[in-house]
Parts: sequence; C-alpha cells; structure tokens
Amino acid sequence: MEKYAIGVDIGGTTVKLGLFDTQGQAAERWEIPTVKEDGGARILPEIAQSIKDKLNSLHLTEADILGVGVGAPGPVDAEGTVHKAVNLGWDVFNIPQALRKYLDLPVKAANDANVAAFGEMWQGGGKGHANIVAVTLGTGVGGGIIVNGSILTGATGAGGEIGHIHIEDNETEPCGCKNYGCLEQYASATGVVRLARRRLAQDQEPSVLRSRGELSAKAVWDAVKAQDGVAIRIAEQFGEYLGKGLAAVAAVANPEVFVIGGGVSKAGEILFDYIRPAYEKYVFQGCRDAQFALATLGNDAGIFGAAGMIINE
Amino acid sequence: MEKYAIGVDIGGTTVKLGLFDTQGQAAERWEIPTVKEDGGARILPEIAQSIKDKLNSLHLTEADILGVGVGAPGPVDAEGTVHKAVNLGWDVFNIPQALRKYLDLPVKAANDANVAAFGEMWQGGGKGHANIVAVTLGTGVGGGIIVNGSILTGATGAGGEIGHIHIEDNETEPCGCKNYGCLEQYASATGVVRLARRRLAQDQEPSVLRSRGELSAKAVWDAVKAQDGVAIRIAEQFGEYLGKGLAAVAAVANPEVFVIGGGVSKAGEILFDYIRPAYEKYVFQGCRDAQFALATLGNDAGIFGAAGMIINE
Repeated sequence: MEKYAIGVDIGGTTVKLGLFDTQGQAAERWEIPTVKEDGGARILPEIAQSIKDKLNSLHLTEADILGVGVGAPGPVDAEGTVHKAVNLGWDVFNIPQALRKYLDLPVKAANDANVAAFGEMWQGGGKGHANIVAVTLGTGVGGGIIVNGSILTGATGAGGEIGHIHIEDNETEPCGCKNYGCLEQYASATGVVRLARRRLAQDQEPSVLRSRGELSAKAVWDAVKAQDGVAIRIAEQFGEYLGKGLAAVAAVANPEVFVIGGGVSKAGEILFDYIRPAYEKYVFQGCRDAQFALATLGNDAGIFGAAGMIINE
Repeated sequence: MEKYAIGVDIGGTTVKLGLFDTQGQAAERWEIPTVKEDGGARILPEIAQSIKDKLNSLHLTEADILGVGVGAPGPVDAEGTVHKAVNLGWDVFNIPQALRKYLDLPVKAANDANVAAFGEMWQGGGKGHANIVAVTLGTGVGGGIIVNGSILTGATGAGGEIGHIHIEDNETEPCGCKNYGCLEQYASATGVVRLARRRLAQDQEPSVLRSRGELSAKAVWDAVKAQDGVAIRIAEQFGEYLGKGLAAVAAVANPEVFVIGGGVSKAGEILFDYIRPAYEKYVFQGCRDAQFALATLGNDAGIFGAAGMIINE
C-alpha cells in the first residue's frame, strides 16, 4: 500500500498544502487562506481540518499518511518550537505538539526558508546532493543550509540567515534588521534596485535604464542581457557582493552546491557569470569547486521540503 | 565491565593517544613519534602496534574497546577519506579502512581541527552545548563547527575553515592560502604581530611595545593588560576583525557558544572585551546571545574529541 506525506507551508496570506508519495511526486496540491485573527490561534486547527477533508475526499485515512511536515515563517528550533512568528501573530509554542491536538499523526516543523532548502535538496536544484546552501534572492535574501541531509537549524533557529552577513562597511542606510551593510541590502531584488539607483545618480552615462519609469531588478537584468554598459556594471557590483558573501558561507558550511532561487533568479544562469568570478576570488581553495544551480521548485519548494522532512530526514 | 574508546591525534611530529572511559575520563595518555618516511605509510601501522602494546600492558583486549577515533591534519570527508595531508606525506585514502588492516576495531576519522572542536564540546569549554563553533587562534586561525552534536564536515572536508573568510579588501600581503585579506591574517598570533607592527610604524606614539626586541602576540596582550594605549588600539583592531568574522559565522551556523582556543587565547577572557563589541555590532539579532568561552582542553582537545566521536556521536 502506497504511503504519503503531507507538506504544509504557512505563509502570511495563504497556507499551501501538498500530498506527496515517497518518490517525491505531488499527488495533490491545494491552498487555504491564513486566518490571522485571534493571534493566529485558528491557523493550525484549520490546517488539520483541511487535511482531514482532503483525506476523506481521496478515500485515504490517517493510516495511509506517514506524517505532516510544517514550514513556518519565523525562527523554529530543532524541537519544532517557534519563537515568535510576527507575520502570523504567533508567540512561543511547540508546533508539532499543538498540531497533534487536532491530528493523530507524526509532525515535524521548521523555519520556512530552511524547509524550502530541504525541498530543493530533495527534488529541486540540489537533487542528488546532501550538502547544499539554498539562497533566496527575493525582497530580502534568505538562506537555508542542509548539512549531510539535515537542516542546519542552529541554536535559536537562525541558522542560514545569510542575508544578514555584514558585507559593506560604508553603508549609510539601515537594513530591515537595523544593522548596516548586510548582504541583503545589495543582493536582494530591492538591493539590485538600490545599486542601480546609486549607479545611475553617479554620472550621466547613457543607459536604457534611464528611460524607464520604475526601476526593477528585472529591468536591470534585461538590460544586462541587452549589453547595456551601465547595467553590466551594476551586475558586476551585485556579483561582487554576493560572490564575496557566498565565499564566507562556503568557508563555514563547505556545500557541494549553491541553489539560487527567488525573484532575482528568474534572470537565469547569467547571474552566475557575475557571482562566480567574485566567489572564486575570495573563497578558500578547498571550497572552490562548489557548483551553482538554479532553484527549480519555485513557490512549491516549501511543500516539497515539508513533506520531504517526513519521508527523507 | 567498563568499556573504553581510544582517541588518536596525528600531528606533524607526534601522535598523541588517549584511552577514555565513556564518562570522558582519560585513563591513559601517551605519545609516539610521527614517522613520516615512506610517504607516511608507517604512521597507521605504528599507531595500531602502539595501541595493541598499551592494551596488553593494561591487561585489556580489543573486546574492551568500543573503537578508535582519529584526527588527521588535512581535509577528511564524512566517510573518513583524507584528501592529501601534505604534512604527513599522505595522498588520498580511507583512514578507517587502512587502520582496520592492523586493528580489528571500529574506526572513525575526521580533520584534526574538527575533532578538537568535538572534544571541546564533549568535555571542554563547550560542554553542555550541541551547537558550537571552536576557534583556534594559533599560527593560523582554525575552526571546527559542531551542529546538533555532529561535526560539520562539508562537501570536501573544508567545513569550518573560518580562518579564510575574506574580511579586508585593502590587504596587500597574501595569506598562506594565497588569497588576500583572510581573517587569519589579523586574528592569528602572527596576525596580531602584523597588526602591531603596522600600528607601531604609523607614528611615534610611546608604547612599551617599542622597547621590546621581538614582538609577539603575548607581548601585545600583556601590554593591553598594562593599559598601554597603543596596545589597546591594536587589540581593538583585532577585535573588530575577529568579531566581524564571527558575526558572519553566526549568520550561517548560529552556535550557542564560541569556544576560543590556541596560543592567543592564553591572554584569557580579556579577549572577549575586544571581540564582543564588534560581534554585537555586526551580528544578526537572532544570533546575538551566543556565548563566548575559553577552550579548556589545550593540546588534549584532539584525543578527547577523537575518543568522543566513538562514544558520543
């Protein structure tokens, strides 16, 4: 009898769910809204109910399910205790214990970025590797580190917070974390726009980026692909920061592969042309052969990873 | 019947060995010379013979021994395969397989710095913690990272090579690794001397360091303790570099405690007065509460850790 695992990815507006077989095929995917009233107290009961309804509709029972993996947007420690998830209104509590009040199944929980990294290792851009660093270049820069097939959670669930590596001493604007000069300030989508704005203000060199209304990371990378000189220099700066940051990460975690995802990664493999030279310049020799790959699971990395924690960890 | 584990720490001139009970007490410690002739081919047979002789002399047999842990000075992967240990003349081979030709016991092997970190977690400055970063401030800067009670080996055995995090863009002298601006160039014993030499050359400000023949890290820290103004500014620079580097490490590995050892650490807890301010300035908030502790096992960390890998991993 085929067994399944359920992956749950709790976001600020939507909870994504997926039913996976042990080979990593998604048999079902669905979503429910994230109900944030009452300090988020209804989120887990509604997830449990939705899972029960889905199993009923598929003529499955809890006996067919190996367990439920949960990714949550906040620091989650190795025991699955969340230490405040402000987006959800959650304080401090143990997610597996709480969910098991409503569902008689094994439950594991971890931080959503770490769970997504696990998904990319299991079925995505890092498939076939046991030591990966997943880097999400979105609004911010997120990270998830898999060591020997397991999530590097760290003491307080802050393992893999590589967006907040200090990388620039001369920054005058604060990062969202209140520090100055974090990697996230240069390598995220907003970081690319900031680099572009600063570069454009520096002189009057012609660039297709000047004729555009709103600057975006996508506009910058499109201009790079069109051989725009100013855009290329912005990309070089981006690559210098990110390559240097990932070289520091490599000296700690020594991954086989960096899996790059998030909005900025839609630019494609051209990113690596700008990251790799700086990476190779700054990295310890023994870590030089790390590969760079694009994430392949997109927004589904969370449900894949959450189910994968049940099946594969 | 009490069981024991044997810890072996292979150095460039001496092999240290220890017999440990499962509580981590050293019942015996001894040394043999490291015989480097024949490409290091005699090292493992001589270790095996020395272990057999010791067991005989103690009226113990192989049945009393849980296994042998080995720390080797080179990159060692998760399977115990060493990838060239130039100090020993070793090429690429699997240490457990090789040693088991001479000894009918379970064998585990890892890089010596990682093994020492494991020792400090098991019985040293990191005792009671499962997530530690051990930092050795010696001739170079070494590191060993323990995640959830296990060594972070990495893809090629370069996990925890934190001495080679790039930390200074304006360095003109190369590091031993051939890169420029590695943490090791400022935070090792030789790094402290380099910082001192540069500071003293900068102007003519009086300092007790000027009257000394040979500058050393110890002389600098002694002068700091004597409130020498120039020495204090050298210590601040050292702390700025090391605190910034460890903040980057924290954003990746999120340890509970940094355990600081090696020659420079003999200065004592005064080091932390200079490391902590920079660490707190640059570190991600969620990692801010990491503790700083001194290593306590000194040169025995390797044999403790090697035995600990057998007993405790």
